Amino acid sequence: MSAAAATAAQLAQAREARAAYRAGAVAPTSGVAHGLVQANLIALPADWAFETLLFAQRNPKPMPVLEVLEAGRVESRLAPGSDVRTDIPAYRVWRDGELADETTDASAAWEEHPDLVAFLIGCSFTFEAGLVDDGIPIRHREHDRNVPMYRTSTACAPAGRLHGELVVSMRPIPASRVADAVTISGRFPAVHGAPVHIGDPGSLGIADLSAPEFGDPPVMQDGDVPVFWACGVTPQAAIMASRPPFAVTHAPGHMFVTDVPDAAYAL
Amino acid sequence: MSAAAATAAQLAQAREARAAYRAGAVAPTSGVAHGLVQANLIALPADWAFETLLFAQRNPKPMPVLEVLEAGRVESRLAPGSDVRTDIPAYRVWRDGELADETTDASAAWEEHPDLVAFLIGCSFTFEAGLVDDGIPIRHREHDRNVPMYRTSTACAPAGRLHGELVVSMRPIPASRVADAVTISGRFPAVHGAPVHIGDPGSLGIADLSAPEFGDPPVMQDGDVPVFWACGVTPQAAIMASRPPFAVTHAPGHMFVTDVPDAAYAL
Repeated sequence: MSAAAATAAQLAQAREARAAYRAGAVAPTSGVAHGLVQANLIALPADWAFETLLFAQRNPKPMPVLEVLEAGRVESRLAPGSDVRTDIPAYRVWRDGELADETTDASAAWEEHPDLVAFLIGCSFTFEAGLVDDGIPIRHREHDRNVPMYRTSTACAPAGRLHGELVVSMRPIPASRVADAVTISGRFPAVHGAPVHIGDPGSLGIADLSAPEFGDPPVMQDGDVPVFWACGVTPQAAIMASRPPFAVTHAPGHMFVTDVPDAAYAL
Repeated sequence: MSAAAATAAQLAQAREARAAYRAGAVAPTSGVAHGLVQANLIALPADWAFETLLFAQRNPKPMPVLEVLEAGRVESRLAPGSDVRTDIPAYRVWRDGELADETTDASAAWEEHPDLVAFLIGCSFTFEAGLVDDGIPIRHREHDRNVPMYRTSTACAPAGRLHGELVVSMRPIPASRVADAVTISGRFPAVHGAPVHIGDPGSLGIADLSAPEFGDPPVMQDGDVPVFWACGVTPQAAIMASRPPFAVTHAPGHMFVTDVPDAAYAL
C-alpha cells in the first residue's frame, strides 16, 4: 500500500456515510465516497482464523486481504474511529453455513462470539472506478443494476476445513476496450486485479449467462465480450460449502467504506 | 503466479541439487538452477501459525509468502517430490529465540514437533537474476561475497506475539542504473519487489555501511548509490526478538531451490 492520501472532501463523505450506517441507515454503497476503497467483510471464530488467512493466501484473486482485525479489535486501520460491528449498512449472520439472520448492527454477533477475527477483503468497486475514469462503460451501472455474479466449476485451492468454488463477477466490455480493461484492473492486484477469464462462459462452467446466481441478469450490447473477474462473494460461497459453526459477513453490495484512496493500492 | 514453465535443463539442475542436499551436500545455493525461484524457510509450531501468516500479511515486502505447508505436510507444491525437512543444504534450529543448532537434516526437528507449519518466503535471488540479465552490476557477486544485510530502526507491523525490526539487504547500484533497478525488481512483488529505501543509510538507522550485521561488508564503487531492499532475514530477526519456543529456518544463503521459474512471479 502506498502513502497516497484521500482528499478532505472524500474523507468527509466516507465518515458521514459510516456515521449514517452506524445510526441505522441502510443503502448499497456503490458510488459512495468515489475513489476510496471499499471492502468485503468476513468474520470467523479465532479457531478458524489461520485457515481463513491461508485460504486467502492460496486464492489471492478472489480474496485479496486488505486488513485483519484479530479477536478483540473492532476498529479498522483503514478507517480511524470506525467500528466494524456497526459501520457497515447491512450484515449477514451465518450458522453452520446457512444464512441465519440479516441485520444492520452486528454487535450482538460479536457479543455472542467475542473471539471473532475479522477479515477485510478488497472489492471490485476499486477497479470499476478506474474503468469509468478511462471511459469504459459499466453496463450494470448504466442500467442501475447489481453486477451479475456466477458460481463456476473452478475449485478454489482448499485450506484445512475451508473449500469452495470460485465465484466471478461479469462485466460486458466492448471488444475494442477489453485490453484496456485488463490493463487498468491489472494495476490493482490488491482488489481482484486483472480478469480471470475473457469470453466463452462455458469453459468456466457457466451454462447460461442470462441467469446469474447472484446480482442481476446482465445487459449485453452488440460487440460486447463477457469479461470475468474473481469476486469477493467467493468467501461467502466457501462459508456455504464448508459450514463453519458461525460467521458474519457484509450483505452483498453493502460494503465497508474506508478512508483509503484507490490509488494507495495501484501498482 | 503465472503458468510459466521451467526448461528441462533448469528442472534437471534443481532436482539434482535437491537430491545432493538430501544426501548431505552443503553449499550456498546462489547461482544454482539460474532462473528458478529459491525460497527462505521458517517453520513454527501450529500454535504460532496464524500469527506468522498475519505477520507476513502485514509485512509483505520482507515476508512474501510463496507457500504454506500445514502441519503434517513436507512436500512443497513448488517442487514435486521434495521434502522440506531434508532438501535444504543447511538448517538452523531455534529454541526460545536463541540459535540452538545448525544441521543439514531437519528430520529430528520435525519428529520433535510434528505440528510444525512451514512457510516458504520469496528470496531476492529472483530479482538479482533480473538485474544481472539487464546488465546491472551486482557488486557482491563480482567480488564473490555474501550480500550485506543490516538491521534498521524501522519496526515491522507486529502480529500477536510476533514483532521485530525490518532487515534490509543493500546493493550498490551505479547512479545511472538505479531507476532501472527499481523497475526491474518492482516487477517481482512476490519476492521483495522494489527497494524500500534509496540512499542515506542514516535515515534507516544504519550508522556504518561498512559494518553490516549479516553477510559481508559491501564493495562500493565511485558513483554507486546504496539501494536497500526488504530482506528475508527479517523473520529470523523476529524469531530472535519474539522468542517463540521452537523454530526451524534455513541457514542464510542456503535456500530451498524450487522447480518454478522466476517469470512465474513477474507482473
